[in-house]
Amino acid sequence: MAKEKLISVETVREHSRAEDCWLVVDGKVWDFTDFLPEHPGGPSIILRYAGRDATQPYNEIHSPSLISDSLSQSKLIGTLDASTITSDWLKLPPKSTPELQLDQKPPLHTLISSHDLEEVASRTISKKAWAFYSSAATDCITHRANCETFDRIWWRPRVLRNVQSACTKTRILGVESSVPFFCAPAAMARLVDGEGEKGIARACAKAGVLQCISTNASFPASEICASVPSHPFFFQLYVNKDRTQTDRLLKSLPSTIRAIFVTVDAPIAGKREADERVRADESLSTPMSGAKAKNDKKGGALGRIMGGYIDPGLCWEDMKWLRSITSLPIVVKGIMSVEDAVMCAEAGIDGIVISNHGGRNLDGAPPSLRTLLQLRLARPEIFRKMEVYLDGGIRRGTDVLKAVCLGATAVGIGRPILYALNYGEEGVSHFIEIIRDELEVAMKLVGITNLGQTSLECLDLGEVETGLGLERWGVKSRL
Amino acid sequence: MAKEKLISVETVREHSRAEDCWLVVDGKVWDFTDFLPEHPGGPSIILRYAGRDATQPYNEIHSPSLISDSLSQSKLIGTLDASTITSDWLKLPPKSTPELQLDQKPPLHTLISSHDLEEVASRTISKKAWAFYSSAATDCITHRANCETFDRIWWRPRVLRNVQSACTKTRILGVESSVPFFCAPAAMARLVDGEGEKGIARACAKAGVLQCISTNASFPASEICASVPSHPFFFQLYVNKDRTQTDRLLKSLPSTIRAIFVTVDAPIAGKREADERVRADESLSTPMSGAKAKNDKKGGALGRIMGGYIDPGLCWEDMKWLRSITSLPIVVKGIMSVEDAVMCAEAGIDGIVISNHGGRNLDGAPPSLRTLLQLRLARPEIFRKMEVYLDGGIRRGTDVLKAVCLGATAVGIGRPILYALNYGEEGVSHFIEIIRDELEVAMKLVGITNLGQTSLECLDLGEVETGLGLERWGVKSRL
Amino acid sequence: MAKEKLISVETVREHSRAEDCWLVVDGKVWDFTDFLPEHPGGPSIILRYAGRDATQPYNEIHSPSLISDSLSQSKLIGTLDASTITSDWLKLPPKSTPELQLDQKPPLHTLISSHDLEEVASRTISKKAWAFYSSAATDCITHRANCETFDRIWWRPRVLRNVQSACTKTRILGVESSVPFFCAPAAMARLVDGEGEKGIARACAKAGVLQCISTNASFPASEICASVPSHPFFFQLYVNKDRTQTDRLLKSLPSTIRAIFVTVDAPIAGKREADERVRADESLSTPMSGAKAKNDKKGGALGRIMGGYIDPGLCWEDMKWLRSITSLPIVVKGIMSVEDAVMCAEAGIDGIVISNHGGRNLDGAPPSLRTLLQLRLARPEIFRKMEVYLDGGIRRGTDVLKAVCLGATAVGIGRPILYALNYGEEGVSHFIEIIRDELEVAMKLVGITNLGQTSLECLDLGEVETGLGLERWGVKSRL
Amino acid sequence: MAKEKLISVETVREHSRAEDCWLVVDGKVWDFTDFLPEHPGGPSIILRYAGRDATQPYNEIHSPSLISDSLSQSKLIGTLDASTITSDWLKLPPKSTPELQLDQKPPLHTLISSHDLEEVASRTISKKAWAFYSSAATDCITHRANCETFDRIWWRPRVLRNVQSACTKTRILGVESSVPFFCAPAAMARLVDGEGEKGIARACAKAGVLQCISTNASFPASEICASVPSHPFFFQLYVNKDRTQTDRLLKSLPSTIRAIFVTVDAPIAGKREADERVRADESLSTPMSGAKAKNDKKGGALGRIMGGYIDPGLCWEDMKWLRSITSLPIVVKGIMSVEDAVMCAEAGIDGIVISNHGGRNLDGAPPSLRTLLQLRLARPEIFRKMEVYLDGGIRRGTDVLKAVCLGATAVGIGRPILYALNYGEEGVSHFIEIIRDELEVAMKLVGITNLGQTSLECLDLGEVETGLGLERWGVKSRL
Repeated sequence: MAKEKLISVETVREHSRAEDCWLVVDGKVWDFTDFLPEHPGGPSIILRYAGRDATQPYNEIHSPSLISDSLSQSKLIGTLDASTITSDWLKLPPKSTPELQLDQKPPLHTLISSHDLEEVASRTISKKAWAFYSSAATDCITHRANCETFDRIWWRPRVLRNVQSACTKTRILGVESSVPFFCAPAAMARLVDGEGEKGIARACAKAGVLQCISTNASFPASEICASVPSHPFFFQLYVNKDRTQTDRLLKSLPSTIRAIFVTVDAPIAGKREADERVRADESLSTPMSGAKAKNDKKGGALGRIMGGYIDPGLCWEDMKWLRSITSLPIVVKGIMSVEDAVMCAEAGIDGIVISNHGGRNLDGAPPSLRTLLQLRLARPEIFRKMEVYLDGGIRRGTDVLKAVCLGATAVGIGRPILYALNYGEEGVSHFIEIIRDELEVAMKLVGITNLGQTSLECLDLGEVETGLGLERWGVKSRL
Repeated sequence: MAKEKLISVETVREHSRAEDCWLVVDGKVWDFTDFLPEHPGGPSIILRYAGRDATQPYNEIHSPSLISDSLSQSKLIGTLDASTITSDWLKLPPKSTPELQLDQKPPLHTLISSHDLEEVASRTISKKAWAFYSSAATDCITHRANCETFDRIWWRPRVLRNVQSACTKTRILGVESSVPFFCAPAAMARLVDGEGEKGIARACAKAGVLQCISTNASFPASEICASVPSHPFFFQLYVNKDRTQTDRLLKSLPSTIRAIFVTVDAPIAGKREADERVRADESLSTPMSGAKAKNDKKGGALGRIMGGYIDPGLCWEDMKWLRSITSLPIVVKGIMSVEDAVMCAEAGIDGIVISNHGGRNLDGAPPSLRTLLQLRLARPEIFRKMEVYLDGGIRRGTDVLKAVCLGATAVGIGRPILYALNYGEEGVSHFIEIIRDELEVAMKLVGITNLGQTSLECLDLGEVETGLGLERWGVKSRL
Repeated sequence: MAKEKLISVETVREHSRAEDCWLVVDGKVWDFTDFLPEHPGGPSIILRYAGRDATQPYNEIHSPSLISDSLSQSKLIGTLDASTITSDWLKLPPKSTPELQLDQKPPLHTLISSHDLEEVASRTISKKAWAFYSSAATDCITHRANCETFDRIWWRPRVLRNVQSACTKTRILGVESSVPFFCAPAAMARLVDGEGEKGIARACAKAGVLQCISTNASFPASEICASVPSHPFFFQLYVNKDRTQTDRLLKSLPSTIRAIFVTVDAPIAGKREADERVRADESLSTPMSGAKAKNDKKGGALGRIMGGYIDPGLCWEDMKWLRSITSLPIVVKGIMSVEDAVMCAEAGIDGIVISNHGGRNLDGAPPSLRTLLQLRLARPEIFRKMEVYLDGGIRRGTDVLKAVCLGATAVGIGRPILYALNYGEEGVSHFIEIIRDELEVAMKLVGITNLGQTSLECLDLGEVETGLGLERWGVKSRL
Repeated sequence: MAKEKLISVETVREHSRAEDCWLVVDGKVWDFTDFLPEHPGGPSIILRYAGRDATQPYNEIHSPSLISDSLSQSKLIGTLDASTITSDWLKLPPKSTPELQLDQKPPLHTLISSHDLEEVASRTISKKAWAFYSSAATDCITHRANCETFDRIWWRPRVLRNVQSACTKTRILGVESSVPFFCAPAAMARLVDGEGEKGIARACAKAGVLQCISTNASFPASEICASVPSHPFFFQLYVNKDRTQTDRLLKSLPSTIRAIFVTVDAPIAGKREADERVRADESLSTPMSGAKAKNDKKGGALGRIMGGYIDPGLCWEDMKWLRSITSLPIVVKGIMSVEDAVMCAEAGIDGIVISNHGGRNLDGAPPSLRTLLQLRLARPEIFRKMEVYLDGGIRRGTDVLKAVCLGATAVGIGRPILYALNYGEEGVSHFIEIIRDELEVAMKLVGITNLGQTSLECLDLGEVETGLGLERWGVKSRL
């Protein structure tokens, strides 16, 4: 039979591309080219052995009979000429994943979750930057609870629904967003990477993600916005003790700023002990005099010293003033109680961010998800009056989806994006894709294909509902 | 007195079998042959010293007077002739259990639980196989909860019931099974052992246990079935995007296949990070082109690349089509909500497997036992309309029995059987016997002797019931 | 002033006894003899420095002025003659507590809790004995829960009650006991100490504590009883498959046996994996034949092989038979459900031991305290019909008192007494005194002075009550 | 342009004070003097580089354009003359925070929380003192729960309230206090520091904090009071078995004592095992005779031996006697049940301290916060009849505020002050300021500015309320 003709290893090697792909299995040479896209295990694993001997990996998982069942006899090229075998041929393709090294950044593509990015940042960014970003108030109870609360909610996944494709698009305050999450405002991104907020901006623009620029950004908002012309932004505002400065600041904002997020949960800075332990300059704690001395005694932590100009006297009246000086939508950032959420809705605020400042200010503040749960179950009508966002504790696409199922329009992501910035703009792009992919996978596995299908019905709140204290608002039972 | 005659060690040594068993205690030689089956401590410990001096172990636990109380004087053979004692005689029988070695498989019979088998597999099967089998979605919350939920249910053991013998037999979809558990479908068993699913099949057939063959098995179903002719099987089906291939596949199944388990909880593969970190071939992630490129970017994890042909568009309508092309009972595998269970019953499905794919797909999916609890307490009538199975988290015979008490006809066991396969067919047989024995012991200690006696009354659900959120289905209290 | 006379160190040293006690403080010599019993800090610390210089320890805690305020001037003997000071005099009394050594038994009096005794036993008794005693069924869930459940009950201590003295006496089945706990039956105490159950008996008799002798004791009951003539005992009974043997056994019991505790929770032995791993003789697992072979395959664990003669067919009918062959009170040991407790009361049983065999048989059996809580809150009338005991998890005097507050007449203590036996009879005496003292202290601090004052009112069950599932028995709320 | 003139490093260096402050950034010399107080990041970080080159730290966080936007051109002095740069100039100011050393006390100002002070005390005070202060009863369950219970209460922070300044002042029994906490009574402070309670007194007086002097203080109350003339104190009383001694003691108290705190939760000392293991003198355990011998057998722990004179017979009748011999307000210290609190109110007691003696006496006594929660929710009217304090578990300013929100007038702080005393009076001052600052920050972040605004509304008790067992007192729901 003609198929029995001998084939040399040199000849086999010539067929090592996707468009022309031979493999040797058990001494027989087969043409896999047409079969590549059909392979249940995907083409990659076959291509790895294109032009080579795949006997060992094939037999690890397949029955000897499978190959002749799957490929027609016309794909059998012949028999390997054993006399042409060389030691080089016998070598397997080199394993290409080296062990992670503890003292340097591994290649970005090997980091596959936000936990990976955080772990790498913890050992490769500067001590000062790590202390500033990772720290949270006193015993970090709220900081930890922000994350853990997500894990106490179970899904109620539905099956046998067509989930061929899922769409993660949404609108935030009328602005299109490819995903229901945005880059939360954070101070001084330059501590991590020289491009700072500009790097984040470019990655966000490419991915169709919105970024909320901090008043304390390393670059002026105008510069950040200018780096990706016409891409929309939000602007986070700390109101200055000197209102004229705030007025001037708002008036100076570029036109691509589409909303103002005014922070209300940080009238003073919290006590972030990790931050305070890495002080800017201890030797200056004594010579300082006057009103500022007190802050300095607390160690000169970046968190404390940065907030000197913020007005701790900001109150509800100021929201009217703010409304009078800008025509942009106003979002109140830092809501931690049902009552204040209701007051915002009554005050005509356009949106709120349920937030405890990432657990950085008042330790024991309720985890953001707890407040969202209480608001959703006790005052569901609020969600029709204004948009509700949440930040704090988002580490997974499933976290994003849970918040959305509870009525949030979108969630803010803070620290993880800074940790991703450790790899520059590319790191941020990589991170956005990780979360977007996790979100899409979660949607499909929950049984929905667009965000309009999210609802309480997707969630099993049985383990968290009892402890929410809903009786306070006259809620007897969820149903 | 004649009994005082001297006996040499050589003579004693001649009586070292169960049928002829002398021992020396405190210098006296006794015939233990008739006493062997009477010994409260069992015959083994006596036989260990058959033909030897048992003075030391005897005195460790018995009073000196006991021996003459227990054995009649006719059993006293005489006095040991001390002049015949040799150093060899004085040596105790060698301790025969060596310490486990961390770098190799210990003898199979020293592994006495599924945990032992898992531990050995974790260090002796290939990294790739371990990563593929042991991995679960993202943070592994569901994977851990699958197991832990079992531990939160207490028994209500009843006493003073005759439990001399217990029968573990049951019928699954009309097929006899020696136990209420079956081998759950799992892909590519050959990764662990060359005999793969065939080895499992032989062990199952010997033990009267049913095996559900995966669409992604290493061998074609026909080969697996042929390895144990006439033994019944189930077949797990992933529906292909190309329905004609599925049609052809079903038609090609051997006649010993007795039911089709169609998987519905994996329209797409979950993100199993341990699996993704051990990639098949990282170097191929770039050259790939076209539609498959996206999967490759995720790392080429076996879990992801294997599912390429599975149809994410599978929906309820397809169940009618499936019904039309096979006359076998149809079981829907992957139910995670009460509502979908009810829909299956209404659709005339023959059975369901409550399953979250071993925690491998959607992290945060409810642990299987939670869904079973909800279904049993909220919709008990469903269990009369179709059979209900569960998989995920079964590690002990007590786990099996708890599920059965909650209404499950049987449970599927997945990973542990693959870990047992690390010792080939014999390992699987050993594992089945471990679980069967644990189940039988549990039944007796709970106070029942056949599975027909299982009921909610056997269980104390006090610690889990509150958090189930049964109010959703209008259940106020269990009783 | 005459008091200024010089005193040599030799003279001071002559006054170093409680009846004649001088000390030097700040160069002055004082007579503390009369003050000794008045010292708020107790006499010990003063006596330590009798005849010596106490300046340093005195100043560590007292004001310089205190001494002249507390002692009249007549107690000032004079001034130390500095010229007589020697280096020996200057040395402090030697610290007498050496560090515990990990490889040997520390002095008994340095062990001050049952945890200490357990820790020492774990490293100094034989591996076989430790495995046998310490092991529990499969995953040890019940074993751990037995202890932990006690810690979830809070006291409600009452103050301003006269608690000068407290009486721990009670009566168990009409027999006087100095404390509401007894030595639970345990097999083969000789594994720990050659005196075995006899050593326990002597310690119990001295302390007025009752001992329940196991059918599987190392010595016949008659020998154990004979070791402390006229001291009352209880006898634990495993009913033999051959009832005539049980009949004979009961008839042979000495007259100081005052009750029969028939064990019903161990129709077969549980799977105690630690025990099975330390097998008696692995080499015998093969040659054994016949009915016993199965047990041997399980590893020849002491727990399994000892139970060969126990009748797994024992049932309620047998209680009538048992009643007919003995006139002693009958206690059923091993009750794990409210229902079986009620059945015992209805069957005229004199008492029950709520017990899960120390977590050794069915893993997942409810912790004993949980069953006691359920029985007390759901069926309080049972406690008036028969006596109720509990064993499992008792490690502290507070544990004993909690059980008594919940209605138990007494509790059984098992493993801790065996660990105490590691120091022989003296160890057991020491252990009994530890628990008795802890119990007395607890009573006083709870605000009661005899066991008749115990009640539910002493306990705050708020954290455990919700999870008890009391609705099963129609209990809506505790009050 | 004149601004382009060259400036030498010598010239720059001359402007290195707050009143005259030049910095070099990117080769330009700027005058920051006027900008110093305006800097959002505070003046410290600028002053660190006064007279130096700040290019690197500036660019780490700021955009290059920011400086010319923020400073008018008139502040640009000129260009640095590169030819004058020296290696000394290039050096950064020295980092001044050395690593903490494990074997010595770090500088006090580097300790920023009560945890820091405790950690340092644990390794630098004497073993005996550490054992005495840190120890708690038996398994330390209550001791740990005292702290942990605080962490289970969430805040309900309110936003947009003017919190420019907050006042922490209150009145305790009519005595002014700068803060709602006081120094709880503790025995023998001299074990830690030679100045003992006097050092504490001076720190308290300076800070306007009240101190409650223990009957077992190292110095007589008169001496302690005399150290800070006219500063008010409280006095903790152990009633002596000999009432005349107590009478005499009270009559001897200085006039600055403003209330008597009579301890009722320690009729006998608890079993503090860590304390007992570090015995005063083991060798004396044998020779002691008579009534004291029993205590000595328990190991001569300081806790046990100190309490010899305390009357375990103290009862409600004695409160009338106590009332008759002093005209000072009487506070009962050691209430652990709602019922006893009510009895105190009915007996006309002026205040109570909810306390379990720091978990040192009865293990399993309810954590103080639990009792406060029960009292507040079940018997709110009590708080209008007398003052209620709490001690046990206070480690943070937030803990103080939570107790006050639950109705406590003030809380006592015990162990942490002793650990602070490890640094003498200065350490105590430092500790008081830490807690006071944490309290003030917490108030502002909760949204209140004086203690009169505290209420249940500030707290989210959802996670603790269910387990409190409030049904006992007929409370169905909190609202």
